[in-house]
Order: sequence, then C-alpha cells, then structure tokens
Amino acid sequence: MTGGGEIERLIEAFARLPGLGPRSARRAVLTLIKKRDRLMAPLIAALEEVAATVRPCAVCGNLDTRSPCGICADPHREAGLLCVVEEVGDLWALERSRAFRGRYHVLGGRLSALAGVGPEDLAIEPLVERVAGGGIDEVILALNPTVEGQTTAHWVRDRLVPTGVMVSQLASGVPLGGELGYLDDGTLTAAIRQRRRT
Amino acid sequence: MTGGGEIERLIEAFARLPGLGPRSARRAVLTLIKKRDRLMAPLIAALEEVAATVRPCAVCGNLDTRSPCGICADPHREAGLLCVVEEVGDLWALERSRAFRGRYHVLGGRLSALAGVGPEDLAIEPLVERVAGGGIDEVILALNPTVEGQTTAHWVRDRLVPTGVMVSQLASGVPLGGELGYLDDGTLTAAIRQRRRT
Repeated sequence: MTGGGEIERLIEAFARLPGLGPRSARRAVLTLIKKRDRLMAPLIAALEEVAATVRPCAVCGNLDTRSPCGICADPHREAGLLCVVEEVGDLWALERSRAFRGRYHVLGGRLSALAGVGPEDLAIEPLVERVAGGGIDEVILALNPTVEGQTTAHWVRDRLVPTGVMVSQLASGVPLGGELGYLDDGTLTAAIRQRRRT
Repeated sequence: MTGGGEIERLIEAFARLPGLGPRSARRAVLTLIKKRDRLMAPLIAALEEVAATVRPCAVCGNLDTRSPCGICADPHREAGLLCVVEEVGDLWALERSRAFRGRYHVLGGRLSALAGVGPEDLAIEPLVERVAGGGIDEVILALNPTVEGQTTAHWVRDRLVPTGVMVSQLASGVPLGGELGYLDDGTLTAAIRQRRRT
C-alpha cells in the first residue's frame, strides 16, 4: 500500500546499509520524498558521481577518482613512512587526525578464521612487494586492537621480517576523554605496563 | 584527500538525512563503495524510480505512484471512515497495524506557533470540503499525543463541527509492553481516568 512497491524497495535498499534499521530507513525515505529537490536530487547526483568515478588506488588501496590516489601522488608526503590499516575508513580516521604525514597501505580487512578470511584475501603480498621495492624506512601497523586485528599484525610483521624494514605499531593506553572506571581491564593493563615518566 | 571531494559530497548528502550523523554516513558510504553492485546500484535505481514516479495523492495526501492512491482507489476500504494523520509516516504505521480499514487524510504536519505552521499550511480546508462533500460517517483524529498534535486536533474538530460528522480520537493509555514505572504521569492519569471494566 506504500507507493506500489517502489517506496518499499527504496526503504529496503536503505535498510541494508550499516547503522540503518527499517525504522530509520523509513524516516530517511520520507524525508527524501518530502525534500525531493533539496535532498533527494543531490543524493542521487552524488551517488552516481561516486559510482562512476571512485576506484581503489592501485598502489595503496585508498578510494579516489584517480589511481595512484591523491595521497600516493602527493610529493609532500613522507615517502619513507608507510602506515598499514585494515580498511579505508581507518585511513580516513587517521587523515582527520592530521597526525600522520606518510603514505598508507590498505589491507582490505583482517585475518579471521570465523569469517573465512585468509592471508591471500588481504593485500599482504602487495605490501611485502612494495616494501621490498625499497625506499620505505618504517612500517607502522595501525590495525585494530582486537584479537583478529592483532593476529593480522603478527602475520604481517612476520612477512615483513625478510625485508629488514623497521616495523612499529600504535601505542595502547587510556584514550583521551576516557574514564578509568569505564575502561576494560586489557586497556588498563596496557596503560600501566607502557606507562611513561612525566 | 578522500576521493577528491566526490566521496565527501556523498557523505554530506547522507549526513543530512534524519538519524544519520557524519560517522554513520561515512560507514554507509564506505559500505556502498565496497558493495557497488550489490548495494549501490540497487539504491541508485530505487532512488531514481521513486523520484520519477512517486507523488502525493490528490485526495488524501498519501504517497503513491498513482493519484488517487491505492488506498483511495481500493473499493474494499470502508468509505465512511476517515482517519486524519499528521504525516505519511503515521499512515504507514497504521497500515502496518492492519487495525484500520477505512481511508486517510494526511494533514502534512501539525499546528506550531514555534515553527510558524498555521492552519493554512495544513490540508485542513481540503479535509472540511471532503467531509462536507458527504459519504463520510466518522472522522478519527489520529494526531500525535503532543501539545501541538492535540492543539491541531482541537482546531480540526472545531472546523468539522458545521459538517455534523461524528469525530473521534485514538484511545490514550498504557502501551502494550510498557512498564508502569517508566511511564510519564500524563499517560498514567489518562489510563486511570479512562479505565474500563473488565
């Protein structure tokens, strides 16, 4: 009864996105129809533009309209510093922090026996080849502090040993703004063990 | 640095939707790009289909690909029973409940001095004309139990008095599955005052 199926199909397409359930998908679709010119038309245009132009960078796996991507092609980036991340979303988060001025390598996920993701499903061999190609002084493993992320980090580190490159990883500890009473034991243990003199 | 602006524009278009912030918009866009064929293409197709075909029903304000809409055109609906709602989303909720088999009238909002919404901004006169046209025995006011919703209900009721139609409104009380300890005083007062013999 809602739009002869067209609206239902649109709601279902929205509800398949992460973070949206049927309820929020319905609200989003109603708002889009109500604001057809101001919201719906720009959204369609932006989706078509991204679908037509955005591709993974052949060097690092970042998403961009060109390959090599803007970061790989930027001569002001430190070429000797390579940061390995699981997903493009992690790369975006690091870029927003403006804390890192080197280049990236996106693995495309993490090792997971449960999900059936093996080393051959990730861009690990391209990383090894890239490092073996020379010009890289340090590889920073910025994988997520989960069991699977750290398993992946160990695997990647082992594969990088033969290249002789220096391998580091992100510091663990208390997040800024976090409250000790709400932190898990593992984080607190890491923060105590890796404490610094002030 | 994220896709030369195209991805940013898409994230902004998503972040303008209700219920999505910048963070969930980013997650949604990443998922869409990752699952280009399975998610992004169907979403674009569904959006274009809705944008091209869905219009408000000229009789009741419901959204459909035809006007009069499927509900207005359905001969199995009780023609004498009219349910007045604020928004199409409320109509959808009532349709999902399958509790109502009459027809609808969508006002397109509620009276709000704060938001500058007056009676002339809502489909109140079309409702009065529709009822004055005859064939309607009862108008059920299914407006939201908020101050503005009830102000709107009073206004609509006053405008309907000259037509002589019977006007009713949804029952107030304890929602199924609700816990008394978490309910507001107003709801409990209504539930006590409108108690029924069992």
